[in-house]
Amino acid sequence: MNEHIVALLTDFGRRDSYVSIMKGVILGIDNQVKLVDISHEIALGDVKDAAYVLSTCVDWFPEGTVFLAVVDPGVGSSRKAVAIRTEKYFYVGPDNGIFTLALRREKLISAIEIDCSAWQSKASSHTFHGRDIFAPVAAYLSQGRNFDSLGSKISQLVQLDIKPNRVEGELIYGSILHIDTFGNIITSIGEEEGRNLASALYVDKHVFPLGSTYSDVACGQPIAYWGSSGYCEAALNGGSASELLQAKIGDEVILQLQSGASKD
Amino acid sequence: MNEHIVALLTDFGRRDSYVSIMKGVILGIDNQVKLVDISHEIALGDVKDAAYVLSTCVDWFPEGTVFLAVVDPGVGSSRKAVAIRTEKYFYVGPDNGIFTLALRREKLISAIEIDCSAWQSKASSHTFHGRDIFAPVAAYLSQGRNFDSLGSKISQLVQLDIKPNRVEGELIYGSILHIDTFGNIITSIGEEEGRNLASALYVDKHVFPLGSTYSDVACGQPIAYWGSSGYCEAALNGGSASELLQAKIGDEVILQLQSGASKD
Amino acid sequence: MNEHIVALLTDFGRRDSYVSIMKGVILGIDNQVKLVDISHEIALGDVKDAAYVLSTCVDWFPEGTVFLAVVDPGVGSSRKAVAIRTEKYFYVGPDNGIFTLALRREKLISAIEIDCSAWQSKASSHTFHGRDIFAPVAAYLSQGRNFDSLGSKISQLVQLDIKPNRVEGELIYGSILHIDTFGNIITSIGEEEGRNLASALYVDKHVFPLGSTYSDVACGQPIAYWGSSGYCEAALNGGSASELLQAKIGDEVILQLQSGASKD
Repeated sequence: MNEHIVALLTDFGRRDSYVSIMKGVILGIDNQVKLVDISHEIALGDVKDAAYVLSTCVDWFPEGTVFLAVVDPGVGSSRKAVAIRTEKYFYVGPDNGIFTLALRREKLISAIEIDCSAWQSKASSHTFHGRDIFAPVAAYLSQGRNFDSLGSKISQLVQLDIKPNRVEGELIYGSILHIDTFGNIITSIGEEEGRNLASALYVDKHVFPLGSTYSDVACGQPIAYWGSSGYCEAALNGGSASELLQAKIGDEVILQLQSGASKD
Repeated sequence: MNEHIVALLTDFGRRDSYVSIMKGVILGIDNQVKLVDISHEIALGDVKDAAYVLSTCVDWFPEGTVFLAVVDPGVGSSRKAVAIRTEKYFYVGPDNGIFTLALRREKLISAIEIDCSAWQSKASSHTFHGRDIFAPVAAYLSQGRNFDSLGSKISQLVQLDIKPNRVEGELIYGSILHIDTFGNIITSIGEEEGRNLASALYVDKHVFPLGSTYSDVACGQPIAYWGSSGYCEAALNGGSASELLQAKIGDEVILQLQSGASKD
Repeated sequence: MNEHIVALLTDFGRRDSYVSIMKGVILGIDNQVKLVDISHEIALGDVKDAAYVLSTCVDWFPEGTVFLAVVDPGVGSSRKAVAIRTEKYFYVGPDNGIFTLALRREKLISAIEIDCSAWQSKASSHTFHGRDIFAPVAAYLSQGRNFDSLGSKISQLVQLDIKPNRVEGELIYGSILHIDTFGNIITSIGEEEGRNLASALYVDKHVFPLGSTYSDVACGQPIAYWGSSGYCEAALNGGSASELLQAKIGDEVILQLQSGASKD
């Protein structure tokens, strides 16, 4: 399980040196580490979006990867600093729900509240736990240090409050989870809920007929499809669906199942 | 030729996890790989600009580097997925012209249409071939796997439609290829066409006298020079030429050769 | 001291291939190198801000790291190309003051003006010394090549012109050094000047009471604290102080010491 890979997700942006400081700290502990940026452009303090973005990529990394996720508006408050071990991976970051969606895809083995006293030579800052707590712990795990030695077991993690989808006859009511760089609208409706059954997706009264990829329709035309992350998405071929619809995260969407295909 | 370097160019942006997913896939195949980002901020679907940006950097990488370029508005359509071997490098991506300009600098050895059946355990998605096809193939090549085993030879690659420059007496008519972060205007006129002969570059009636670097003129003043990529460029010392001129890609430019230096 | 780490800081942005070209050059010389991006989004030509950003991260990298900093509005002019050796690190870049603040944290051992004649096979471009001079020298140092062989010793480096803070009774007058991604305002007043003594920070008539972290105050409320880089900072909990105040780099700030705590 020791791949020496640390994948980083933050809302620190790329103008400042904050991300590089965490990388310097990690390299100082594990000089064999390979560092991968997931994103540093999560909207400031948007734990929900960070949780979504993290969940979309974890499956694609080698076993043993350490995911270091620091979107942490509560830094310095009483929120816990945690490390999590699953069947395939490690996760390190604040206990604020940021791991909720990734962990749904995984078998959790153990979670600890990080105890710095064992390894910190001087006190943490109050404003940059990414540097003082999370980066060192990620590096220790990447290096192969014993997980249980880094803190004390906890039985509960903070969970994100995520509204479940709702089925009514031939309609599934969900919401917009994320809007990507291309303006594609990713909904909360997963493949297991509607694949092979759906005929159209409605977003704010606009109809997106189900297909399999952008070029199924003419340029500029709407299309829905099961996206690469496993959720139903709405797009315009060669355009931006979110711009057309002025859609935003949380807006309601409705998936229409084929007549007679009701899951009830 | 086996340097374990993969250099990535996409229009995926940095907000989403798409780039990191490709990196996770590559690291899962070749755990010695060194990953270099060329750019992920190509304008959405702008294959021409991607071709330009790629062409500016290839010469500077070690032999054996694998260039993974995914600006792919036709993903899921009938466009081919290709891998290309040249005397120095490998290229992997969609067959949409993205490699046209880079290949002009190189000696092509072989091109194949990628055949996934040999190595894919499950079907590709229809919307993310970067993850399902191009990243694995790049990793196999980085790892040293046999090129010819990855698909079947093809004799033609799709070519970008690029307007050639035109010479009339002491004038060379070209166009704007690219505008960089500094607002410098990079033209289609190459060193081999005018170096040592040119006296001034005209962009939209503005005159940029030929010099060798920004500081040849006072702050705010216009200057043309043979840029680091081998093309004639127009700049303002300490300012943005493209902002001043409201210049855009494709606009006409004219290079004035020294009187009596006509190439005719 | 040979860690094979090169950390890069530029104003090249991420749209163009310039940063990747430097990385390709470095990998061609030192194929074991680990490359870390500090930032490539320094405002164009802003040497002062680059100096600040560099100074915030150097302490956190392993000994032997090579810092390659290229914010270089004077490229091609008579400004020197330099390499610097300190007790812990190497620095490579233009001699324009970019290293001033980082070097204040370090013990300087030696500085040289880079002499390319020893190792360059063809002449440098006039506009991209990052590629032609600084990247190769950084790679040589990362690789462990002898520092003194790369140029000839110089006794003076160009220094940034930085206004010192001023103490008047119980007030310290400083200025805004940097505004970060979160809109936090970082001032020029360091811990050694006021820690344990300060009661409030004034920025443009607004009062920021001293605390230790954002969550010391209610959401949206102002707070000052000793930031992770060692300077006094002003923030809004969950908001952007710089937006509220329309603050900009260079603006005056005043730190109020506790009554009776005057340093005079």
